[in-house]
Amino acid sequence: MFTTDMTSTHPRKPPSDTTALNDCIAACLACEQACTACADACLAETLVHELRACIRINQDCADICSTTGRSLSRLTAPDLELIKTQVELLLLACVKCGLECEKHASMHAHCRVCAAACERCAQACRRFLGLPVR
Amino acid sequence: MFTTDMTSTHPRKPPSDTTALNDCIAACLACEQACTACADACLAETLVHELRACIRINQDCADICSTTGRSLSRLTAPDLELIKTQVELLLLACVKCGLECEKHASMHAHCRVCAAACERCAQACRRFLGLPVR
Amino acid sequence: MFTTDMTSTHPRKPPSDTTALNDCIAACLACEQACTACADACLAETLVHELRACIRINQDCADICSTTGRSLSRLTAPDLELIKTQVELLLLACVKCGLECEKHASMHAHCRVCAAACERCAQACRRFLGLPVR
Amino acid sequence: MFTTDMTSTHPRKPPSDTTALNDCIAACLACEQACTACADACLAETLVHELRACIRINQDCADICSTTGRSLSRLTAPDLELIKTQVELLLLACVKCGLECEKHASMHAHCRVCAAACERCAQACRRFLGLPVR
Repeated sequence: MFTTDMTSTHPRKPPSDTTALNDCIAACLACEQACTACADACLAETLVHELRACIRINQDCADICSTTGRSLSRLTAPDLELIKTQVELLLLACVKCGLECEKHASMHAHCRVCAAACERCAQACRRFLGLPVR
Repeated sequence: MFTTDMTSTHPRKPPSDTTALNDCIAACLACEQACTACADACLAETLVHELRACIRINQDCADICSTTGRSLSRLTAPDLELIKTQVELLLLACVKCGLECEKHASMHAHCRVCAAACERCAQACRRFLGLPVR
Repeated sequence: MFTTDMTSTHPRKPPSDTTALNDCIAACLACEQACTACADACLAETLVHELRACIRINQDCADICSTTGRSLSRLTAPDLELIKTQVELLLLACVKCGLECEKHASMHAHCRVCAAACERCAQACRRFLGLPVR
Repeated sequence: MFTTDMTSTHPRKPPSDTTALNDCIAACLACEQACTACADACLAETLVHELRACIRINQDCADICSTTGRSLSRLTAPDLELIKTQVELLLLACVKCGLECEKHASMHAHCRVCAAACERCAQACRRFLGLPVR
């Protein structure tokens, strides 16, 4: 990842803590990939019809991760209210997606890994937002 | 657009008013395209350095439109709280992006068109959310 | 859609035929939406395990539509070779996705609609590329 | 990143070398982030009007990275011809974007970092495609 170098060479300084920002961007990318792969792995399972809700929220969470990772990567003329609302949406998506994945974690290892990616991303969102990290 | 046909042939019924849903999906797609094109048109202007904030929020708004349009196109196992929060984020983005574009509307016709796309999308979001439409 | 107005108000002129460009952008957006909805509709079907290949290529085609629609919406400093290669990829994706959807068109109306969206987008790609339109 | 764990827990085996696949996915994500940030960093520069071509290709390359990373993360019912064509497009985009960024590398450190991300991604594409790696 080149995130740290990209942030440090940008002509604008981040409006928030740089470490929390870089960590949140990296968590977005990792969670987007895990959710995309988990949706596809669920689709390949024999009992795919029991995994519809997991596939659905995986796809939504992946898209929200992608949009948030891009927005956080931009430091020019930021709208702080919009960014905060975006990260709050991602936190909600990660919590919900993680809970759904955990339901299937004992059965499907990919759901266990994806739940971990969601949890890590949720924590990064909390840190970025200045919320208590559990 | 095939939105109406796709929604009517989906095995699941929409959790909300079908017309409002289809209209919101179409508005998302149209606004994403307008914002992507407006960011690029601003970049080509001689006074691009005065349009940085417009380019930035155009890009964010385009990404949020894309994610929302995809989420609304999915009717399987919806999480209504997540969808509502997503559309509220889009409403915020469209209002802010539209206000920024209107600042330059007298100078740049593409900003005027983009402001109209944002306004239409904001209205579609309000209708989807059951908020008063102005 | 605001595509025609956005293109006509852009400070740069399109490097290709304007009608073919606008039509291809509109077809990308419509096909992205149809493919996203068709993947989700297939997921909701009782016989979802027979629709895995359809869901998979629907998702890939939707992503390629999105990327191509964005690229075509940008007129600043175009790289014509890259754009041509992008549209050729989309043509391939639409042909393949359309063929897969047609396999299920008699059984699932959403696959029939999606096949039509893919066919329209493939035709728009051919016109953009200057290939014979069937 | 959870890429390695997601791939190894997927019920389908990759159609290609697993290490090359995982490496290419990771390179896509890193390059998408670098290109998104570089476009935005260029936008913030005083001489932004000299960086239009760089911003443009950064944006296209970021979108192609995103689409390719998603496609490679899916292992269900792959269409090998479509995947190969997608990775070839990405290779072209990374080479072109890297060359453009290198033009500004002595002036702008973010362009230097982004050129390195493009080069790493191009190498990962070549390895995935079985082409000679320079």
